[in-house]
Amino acid sequence: MEKLFASVITIGDELLIGQVVDTNSAFIGQELNKIGVFVRYRFAVGDEANDIKTVLDQASLGTDIILITGGLGPTADDITKPLLCEYFGGKMQVHQPTLDHVTRLFEKVFHRPMIESNRKQAEIPDVCTVIPNEKGTAPGMLFEKGRKIYIAMPGVPGEMKAMMPVVLQIIQQRFAAPSIEHRTLLTMGLGESFLAEQIKDFEAALPSNVKLAYLPNYGQVRLRLTGHGAGKKELVQQMDSLFSELKSKVGDVLVADEDIPMEAAIGKLLLEKGKTMSTAESCTGGYIAHLLTAIPGSSAYYYGSLVSYDYRIKADVLKVKQATLDTHGAVSEETVKEMAAGALDLLQTDYTIAVSGIMGPGGATPDKPVGLVWMAAASKDGAMQTRSFHFRFDRRRNIEMTATNALNFLRKFIIDS
Amino acid sequence: MEKLFASVITIGDELLIGQVVDTNSAFIGQELNKIGVFVRYRFAVGDEANDIKTVLDQASLGTDIILITGGLGPTADDITKPLLCEYFGGKMQVHQPTLDHVTRLFEKVFHRPMIESNRKQAEIPDVCTVIPNEKGTAPGMLFEKGRKIYIAMPGVPGEMKAMMPVVLQIIQQRFAAPSIEHRTLLTMGLGESFLAEQIKDFEAALPSNVKLAYLPNYGQVRLRLTGHGAGKKELVQQMDSLFSELKSKVGDVLVADEDIPMEAAIGKLLLEKGKTMSTAESCTGGYIAHLLTAIPGSSAYYYGSLVSYDYRIKADVLKVKQATLDTHGAVSEETVKEMAAGALDLLQTDYTIAVSGIMGPGGATPDKPVGLVWMAAASKDGAMQTRSFHFRFDRRRNIEMTATNALNFLRKFIIDS
Repeated sequence: MEKLFASVITIGDELLIGQVVDTNSAFIGQELNKIGVFVRYRFAVGDEANDIKTVLDQASLGTDIILITGGLGPTADDITKPLLCEYFGGKMQVHQPTLDHVTRLFEKVFHRPMIESNRKQAEIPDVCTVIPNEKGTAPGMLFEKGRKIYIAMPGVPGEMKAMMPVVLQIIQQRFAAPSIEHRTLLTMGLGESFLAEQIKDFEAALPSNVKLAYLPNYGQVRLRLTGHGAGKKELVQQMDSLFSELKSKVGDVLVADEDIPMEAAIGKLLLEKGKTMSTAESCTGGYIAHLLTAIPGSSAYYYGSLVSYDYRIKADVLKVKQATLDTHGAVSEETVKEMAAGALDLLQTDYTIAVSGIMGPGGATPDKPVGLVWMAAASKDGAMQTRSFHFRFDRRRNIEMTATNALNFLRKFIIDS
Repeated sequence: MEKLFASVITIGDELLIGQVVDTNSAFIGQELNKIGVFVRYRFAVGDEANDIKTVLDQASLGTDIILITGGLGPTADDITKPLLCEYFGGKMQVHQPTLDHVTRLFEKVFHRPMIESNRKQAEIPDVCTVIPNEKGTAPGMLFEKGRKIYIAMPGVPGEMKAMMPVVLQIIQQRFAAPSIEHRTLLTMGLGESFLAEQIKDFEAALPSNVKLAYLPNYGQVRLRLTGHGAGKKELVQQMDSLFSELKSKVGDVLVADEDIPMEAAIGKLLLEKGKTMSTAESCTGGYIAHLLTAIPGSSAYYYGSLVSYDYRIKADVLKVKQATLDTHGAVSEETVKEMAAGALDLLQTDYTIAVSGIMGPGGATPDKPVGLVWMAAASKDGAMQTRSFHFRFDRRRNIEMTATNALNFLRKFIIDS
């Protein structure tokens, strides 16, 4: 079966100068992917007529579906609509259902009088099919040119997202999309190249309809298998079988056999076991707690943290002995062990992870370089494990690496305990 | 003076299927903008040789600077390097300084043996100039074609960011960019449109070589003046004068007259006053502490935090009265007041900020909607102020909005106290 390709065009100066991170394209890519449409190219272009035309020409080379967002608003810099009208050889005319919708929105939702620029939202090229915008005033527009379809959507993420189901339906009705399946797993503990070495036979033997991608991120590597084929059922079987083979090849660096972050993986483990955890953080300054609490529902297993950035709080609140701090320093195996014990005592959870290190750029001593980290995982039954790391990145990345490794260290400690 | 245009190409399947949001392009756009280079087009393309070539052709139309990220890693799906080699008609050969650098990284930093794919990182097209990668193994590459330059950088954000200063230097040396001066200030407390109304006379009277940009971000608005001109000295004078006028127009929503984040602004204030602070966090789950400790040197004024995610920790550790929790709930003015008092007592700092709220998607009650937040700022001499907010975003953004507003609330409390 023929592969179905799409291009995504986002329009707006704010994207080009980096004022706004383009999350629309990522969302559209995910949605298209689910129905078996491959995004071949993505373009971002400013509010410049000639540049937009150039990109419209380029986007249609080798793709049949061109999705466009942005530039449909009521202000002077929103030029997408008249430009598309001209590009497809149409004339602007008032679209009565859209005018009714906009009028109703102003009366019932915005509680403001309409001004001329709002009324203009209802002027639509006569060569397009209108796609209603439930969430806002700028409608979507479907243009056709031979086999190709062009769909323009508003750039406001909430409005675009609400319109996407209809857009996907249009695409599925128009084209016979192949089935597509993804399988993703998360690993930690082996660098990308070592992992590749470990699974190179598997990768070399992959059938031509399946691709393997490495997605490294802060010491973690996601592996993603993407397969496409005509028959959904056969594809699912093939992918399931390949995925279990991949899991066994990956071995003990496997963290999760789904596309979730480390902090969700440890959360699932704690939920399964009905256990709770806390953190005692020095150098990570609450970042481990933040990762954990970014997951909805984390209050079921994450209870709290003590961030002891200052020596005095390590001593007074976590009851690290002054002699330990004096003799071994705040970044030492002895200190993190006492921090972990103190946190279990203070916060009364089943498990805790204590972390102390030097994140840089300052803070190094002759025997303790920037990037040195000690961590201790402990359980309330008295088990404890410690480990040191040495990260060599900048402050921000050292903090992120420390946090992710601490979560993985505690995760393995919980599994083994 | 002629405008200088760039295209940005990001390479990687993970971008097209939306698994990764493209933050690199936004960063590159910002950096280019600062030196007076305009991004005209942005492209994203998968790990497909023909598609990358198509985009390389398209990107150079109407632009002289083509920046490329991604696909330089050691694995089989990283095809950018050999493809650029072919595109520019070169041959791959071992680049000794890069091999030395990679070898050193493995010996001194990774403490692991190198494998063949790592060694391959040092094979470089003989038609490019190498740009060293201080943070990783894949070097940057500069190709030239007539007046145009193409620079390929690794896709790992930290590595790309560390390489950008050199890239900007190359661009500035190659092209006669005009003198450019920026002046940025940070405000919080007035929405973009209200701020615009307040300074509209100033904006209308700006000379034609100076532009004002509004950069809104989570309730904060940065204002950036960008001026360009032939003479550096005159430009600096002009910009200084306009900037002080802008500061006075902005008035009391001014947080900082430089481009620093809120957490650095409060840090400077505490350093000036020789005071210390702590946090007592519930719904922000350590994120306020994380923001504060992301700033190097924050240990001089930030001492620690208690994250009391669970009721029991609010009661047992922060000594919030059980009656208060039972009567008013964890998200209430009464509870945050007791949390703040408890944190001052536990952590012994001059100031503290206590926060409790419902970040969503779950957790709402009939009388307390998702997004409701209570906060209390307190000082050890007994002063206390409280405030509630209602944020209407998703969980992640609600957490970020709460944290930034909490820091600003405490900052104003410290100034007034």
